[in-house]
Amino acid sequence: MDDFELACRGLYRALTIREKYMRLAFQRFPRTASQYLRQIEGESFRPEEQLEPVFTSPPKEGEDPFDVKNLPKNLGYVARMKDGVIYVYNDAAAADKHKPKDTPYPDLNTFIDDMNFLIALIAQGPTSNTNSPHFCNTYTHRRLKFLMSKFNVHEMLNEMEEMKEVKKNPHRDFYNCRKVDTHIHAAACMNQKHLLRFIKKSYRVDAERVVHNLKGKEVTMKELFQSLNLHPYDLTVDSLDVHAGRQTFQRFDKFNAKYNPVGASELRDLYLKTENHINGEYFATIIKEVANDLEEAKYQYAEPRLSIYGCNANEWNKLSNWFVRHRVYSPNLKWMIQVPRIYDIFRGRNFVPHFGKMLENIFLPVFQATIDPQSSPELSIFLKHVTGFDSVDDESKHSGHMFSTKSPKPEEWDIAKNPSYTYYIYYMYANIAALNQLRKQRGMNTFMFRPHCGEAGAITHLLAAFMTADNISHGLNLKKSPVLQYLYVLSQIPIAMSPLSNNSLFLEYAKNPLLEFHKKGLVVSLSTDDPMQFHYTKEPLMEEYAIAAQVFKLSTCDMCEIARNSVLQSALSDEEKRHFLGKDYLKEGPEGNDIRKTNVPQIRMAYRYETLCYELNLIKEGLKSE
Amino acid sequence: MDDFELACRGLYRALTIREKYMRLAFQRFPRTASQYLRQIEGESFRPEEQLEPVFTSPPKEGEDPFDVKNLPKNLGYVARMKDGVIYVYNDAAAADKHKPKDTPYPDLNTFIDDMNFLIALIAQGPTSNTNSPHFCNTYTHRRLKFLMSKFNVHEMLNEMEEMKEVKKNPHRDFYNCRKVDTHIHAAACMNQKHLLRFIKKSYRVDAERVVHNLKGKEVTMKELFQSLNLHPYDLTVDSLDVHAGRQTFQRFDKFNAKYNPVGASELRDLYLKTENHINGEYFATIIKEVANDLEEAKYQYAEPRLSIYGCNANEWNKLSNWFVRHRVYSPNLKWMIQVPRIYDIFRGRNFVPHFGKMLENIFLPVFQATIDPQSSPELSIFLKHVTGFDSVDDESKHSGHMFSTKSPKPEEWDIAKNPSYTYYIYYMYANIAALNQLRKQRGMNTFMFRPHCGEAGAITHLLAAFMTADNISHGLNLKKSPVLQYLYVLSQIPIAMSPLSNNSLFLEYAKNPLLEFHKKGLVVSLSTDDPMQFHYTKEPLMEEYAIAAQVFKLSTCDMCEIARNSVLQSALSDEEKRHFLGKDYLKEGPEGNDIRKTNVPQIRMAYRYETLCYELNLIKEGLKSE
Repeated sequence: MDDFELACRGLYRALTIREKYMRLAFQRFPRTASQYLRQIEGESFRPEEQLEPVFTSPPKEGEDPFDVKNLPKNLGYVARMKDGVIYVYNDAAAADKHKPKDTPYPDLNTFIDDMNFLIALIAQGPTSNTNSPHFCNTYTHRRLKFLMSKFNVHEMLNEMEEMKEVKKNPHRDFYNCRKVDTHIHAAACMNQKHLLRFIKKSYRVDAERVVHNLKGKEVTMKELFQSLNLHPYDLTVDSLDVHAGRQTFQRFDKFNAKYNPVGASELRDLYLKTENHINGEYFATIIKEVANDLEEAKYQYAEPRLSIYGCNANEWNKLSNWFVRHRVYSPNLKWMIQVPRIYDIFRGRNFVPHFGKMLENIFLPVFQATIDPQSSPELSIFLKHVTGFDSVDDESKHSGHMFSTKSPKPEEWDIAKNPSYTYYIYYMYANIAALNQLRKQRGMNTFMFRPHCGEAGAITHLLAAFMTADNISHGLNLKKSPVLQYLYVLSQIPIAMSPLSNNSLFLEYAKNPLLEFHKKGLVVSLSTDDPMQFHYTKEPLMEEYAIAAQVFKLSTCDMCEIARNSVLQSALSDEEKRHFLGKDYLKEGPEGNDIRKTNVPQIRMAYRYETLCYELNLIKEGLKSE
Repeated sequence: MDDFELACRGLYRALTIREKYMRLAFQRFPRTASQYLRQIEGESFRPEEQLEPVFTSPPKEGEDPFDVKNLPKNLGYVARMKDGVIYVYNDAAAADKHKPKDTPYPDLNTFIDDMNFLIALIAQGPTSNTNSPHFCNTYTHRRLKFLMSKFNVHEMLNEMEEMKEVKKNPHRDFYNCRKVDTHIHAAACMNQKHLLRFIKKSYRVDAERVVHNLKGKEVTMKELFQSLNLHPYDLTVDSLDVHAGRQTFQRFDKFNAKYNPVGASELRDLYLKTENHINGEYFATIIKEVANDLEEAKYQYAEPRLSIYGCNANEWNKLSNWFVRHRVYSPNLKWMIQVPRIYDIFRGRNFVPHFGKMLENIFLPVFQATIDPQSSPELSIFLKHVTGFDSVDDESKHSGHMFSTKSPKPEEWDIAKNPSYTYYIYYMYANIAALNQLRKQRGMNTFMFRPHCGEAGAITHLLAAFMTADNISHGLNLKKSPVLQYLYVLSQIPIAMSPLSNNSLFLEYAKNPLLEFHKKGLVVSLSTDDPMQFHYTKEPLMEEYAIAAQVFKLSTCDMCEIARNSVLQSALSDEEKRHFLGKDYLKEGPEGNDIRKTNVPQIRMAYRYETLCYELNLIKEGLKSE
C-alpha cells in the first residue's frame, strides 16, 4: 500500500470513529460525510437515520416558559454512578446487580483504543520507521495547502459574481442576517461600561439595603462599599479594572482575577453570582438587560454559559431556583452549563472525596430530574432551556496525567492532582451520551457537548473533542496539527472563534488563524467570550464582526457565511433555524441554503459543497484498491 | 562644523520658518519650541505674544446661533485678488493703485526660498558631495529611533504607575473623556446602515413628493426610484454599495464612486448634497440625526467638512443658505470647508478661465462678508460656525508641476493641467492668512488651515503643510522622511489619523504607523474620515478607538492621551477646551493637564514634556558653538 492509501485508510477510520460517538450522544455528523462513508463501505445511506439534537422551541404565543404544568410523570427508574458514568436501572434491585437498561453506553476500552489509534494517526515528525503514520501529516498538509489555494482562486474568479448575487438579493444584508454569539460567559456578558453603570445605579437605589454577609455580619451596600474604601460615584472603568490588558497576555491567572470588580471578590459575589445574599438578583437583572439589548437589536442571539462546579449535589437546585425566581428567560438567549476543570482545587480543600463525586454532583441531579421531573419542577423547567455542556479552564496548565485503560476510575481518583483534559472530556461525554438517550426516549430536549478546546495546551485536546464534541470553542491549536485540521474540515465541526479574546490572552490579532480556517473550509463562527474583559462598544458581537471584517478584509459574503455558520453551530431550535436559515437548512450544500434569509450566495455554497465532496471522494478513491 | 551642528542649524531654521508662517496666519506654534528658539537667539520669550486662533464660543443659554442681530457694520474696504491672493484696500482707488492696507502678507519669493531650503534639508540618499545635507537625515533618523526606544523603556518602567494614577482618578475614564472626530466628511458622516434606513424612511413618507429634476422633468421620489429600476423596500447595504471593500484598495477612483448610493449619482444628489431640488433637506436631516447621536453620547464631537469647489462665486451663498434654512447647528459639530483640488476638471469643462478665478470664487465672498457682514447675513452667520479650511483629493495623482518663482501666477494658470499640491497649499494658505488678519482685527473668529496631507503621494506635501498648516489629516508618509517626522515632533503638529480609512485605501491596518508615531511623541488623534464607507457600528468613532486599542494594544492611558490630543487639535472654542481639558490647557507639559478632566496621568505628561525639551535643548546645544 502506498502512502496515499494509508492516509485515506487512516482518515476513513477517524471519520467513522467520530460518527459513532456523535450518534451515541445524539450529536451531529454531516450527511455528506456519512454518505461517503456508506459508499466506501458499500452500504446505502439512509438520511432518515441521521440523528439531530433536540432543543426546546420558543414558547408559543401566550405560553409561559416557566410553566410547570404538564411535567412528565415519574418513570420510577433508578440512576446510579458506576465507574464515573451514571447508569439508569429499572429499579434499585437491578442497580444493585448492575443490570442497566438496555441502552448503548460508550465503552471505556473502545474509547481508549479509538483514541490511541487517532494519537498514532496524528503523530508527527520525520522518522525512518516505515510503520510510522507520518504519511498522514504529509498528505493532510498538502490537502490543506491545496484548499487554501483553491479558495484564493475561487475568490479571484468569483468574487464579483458572489457580490452580484448578494446585491440582487432584496431586503437582506449582513445587518439583518441572524447571528449568534456562540461562546459567551454569562458572568462577563455585559461590557465594562454596562457593569459600571449598573453598580452606580444599584447604589443610588439600594444603598441602605442589606446585600452582603461580611464575616458573619449582615451589611448594607453602603457599609460594603465603605469596607472596601470606595464610593460608587467615584468608580470608573479604570478603577473597576475588569478589562483585560497587556498584563493578561499569556497570563490566564491574571485574566481570571479580572472577574473581580475593583479586585474585590465581594463585588463579584454581589453582582456576578447567582448565589449570594440577594439570591443573585443583580446578576439576573444585568443579564436581562443584556437580553433586552439583543431583543431590540433583533438579529442577535447569544449562548451564555452558567457554571455548575460539581462541588455539591445542591448546585443544580440553587441555579434553577435562581433562573425561575428571577424569570431569566429571553428568546434571544440559549443557555449552556459550563463545568470548570478544577477538581484539584476542590479536592485540595476537601470539598469532594474523589473525582467520581464531582461527576456525580454534576450529572446525577439531571438524571433524576429527567426520570422524575415533578420531583424538582424548577430544575426540570431550567433544563428545558439548557442546551448543552461546556468544559472550561486554562488549557495551558498541564496535568501530567495520560489517560489510558490503567488510569484510576473516577471513584478511585482521590489524589489532589487534576486528571488530564481527555479524562475530563471522556467522562463528561459519556454521561451526556447516557443522559441524552434517556431524555430522547422521554421526548425531552437533549444536550450538546461544546467544550473549550484548542485555545492553548496539547493538541490531544482537539483529538478528544474530535471524538466527543458536537462543536468547540477556540480551536486555535488546529494550526499545529494538519491531520486534525483536515479532519475538522471533513467532518465540518463548528468552531466558535474569539479573536479579540485570543488577542488579550494567547495570540495577537493579526496572527489569528480565523481567516485561514475560513478559507480552508472549516466551519468558523465569531463569538465574544467575555465582553466585560475584551470589548469596548455597546454591541460586543458587532464589534467582533467589525474588527474581523476590517483586519481580515472579509467580504459581505464572508461575513454572512460566518453568521450562517453561527446559527448552524448554535442550539437555536429546529423551528428557529428554519425561520432564520430556510426550511431546508438540514440539507447540505446549496440546496440547504436560502439566500433570502442568509444572504450567502449560492456560488459560495456550491464552492464549499463541491470542495468538500471532492476531498471526501479522494478518500473513497484511495480505498477503492482494497 | 560637524554634522551634528549642521543638523541642528538646519532644524533650527526649519522651526523658525514654521513659526513665522503660523504667526502670520494666527495659527499655533508651541510655546515650548518658541521658548527654545528665543533662547538660541538670545532673546527673551514673551508668552503674551503667542498667537492663538479664535473660535466662536457656543451660544449662551437662550442665545440663538442663527441670530443675525448685531452683525458688525460695513468697513467699506475693497477686497480684490492680485497674483492669486486677495488684498484688502481702504477703497477702490487704493485698489487700483494696489496700495493694500498695511498688513503683513506672505511673500511668494520668501516662501519659495524657505521651501527650497526645506527641500534641501530633507533631501535623501548617500552622496559624495560634502555639501549634501544628508547629515540631517542621519541625525533625525537616530533621534527618532532613540525616541522610540525611550518610550518603550518609559512604558516598561512606568506603565503600572501610570495605571495607578488613572485608577485613583475618580469619576473619569476613557468613556467620559471628551473626544473629537477631527477628520470626517459631512457627505459620509452617517454609517451605511443609517443612510439605508433614512432612504427607506424618506420613501415611506415622501414617495409622492417632487424631489428631483430628471432630464428637465420634475419627478416624484417614486418616479425617481422607478427610473432607477429599484424599490427602496428591497434596498440593502449590499445593493446600496457605499462601503469600501477590497476593490477600493489603492483605487481612489473606485473609492470616490462609492459616494453614489446604488451607483446612482441621482441618489447622491438627493440625499448627500446641500444643493438640489429639495434644497438639501434630506442631507440636513441626516446630519442633524448624526449630531443628535453625538449629543446623546455627550462626550463625542465631530468636525465635518462641507465642500466649496470654487466653480462659481455663488457657492458660499447657497451653502450658507442651506445651513441657515435647515438650522444645521449642533454644539457637538464644528464645521470646516473642504476644497477639492480639481481645478483640472473645472478648467477642462470651461467652468473657470484660470486657477485665479477658482481661488477668487473660494475666498472673495468670505472677505466681502467679513468686510460687510450685513450685506450677506446668512454667510456671516455660517462663517461664525466655520472653523477652518481643508484641501482634499487623491494625493497619489501626480501633477508633474514643480512650484517655483517661475510658475505662472494663478491668474495666468489657464492650462487644463492641475497645479501641484504645494501650489494649491500655498495659495490657500496665503488667502487664509490675509483673511485671518482681517477677521482678527474685526474681532471675528479665524480659520485654521488643516489640509489632507501625507495620505499618499510625494513627501513634499508634508513639507508644504509643515510650513502652512496648523494641523493635518493622515500624515502616513511621515514614515518616509525622518527629517519631516522629527520636525513634526518638535513642532507638535497634530495629525488626525484614520487607520480604518487607510486600511481600505492605502495601507493595511497592521502596518499603520499610528502606534509608532504615538510612541515617538507625534501628536496623533483618531478620526473616522468616512463612516459611510468604512465603519460597521452605530458609533464609528468608538469603533475607530476600539479597533486601534485592540490591534495596537493601547492602554487606557494611551487612549486618553489620544482623546486629549483630539480636543487640542480640534477647533473647539477656548471656553470648551477649558471645560474639557482644564483651565490651563494652553500651558504645555504637566501643568497644562487636568487629570480630573482628561484622565491622562501626570507621569505620561511629564514624560512627553521632558522628552520634548530634551530634544529641543539638543538643538540649542548644537548651536552654542556658533
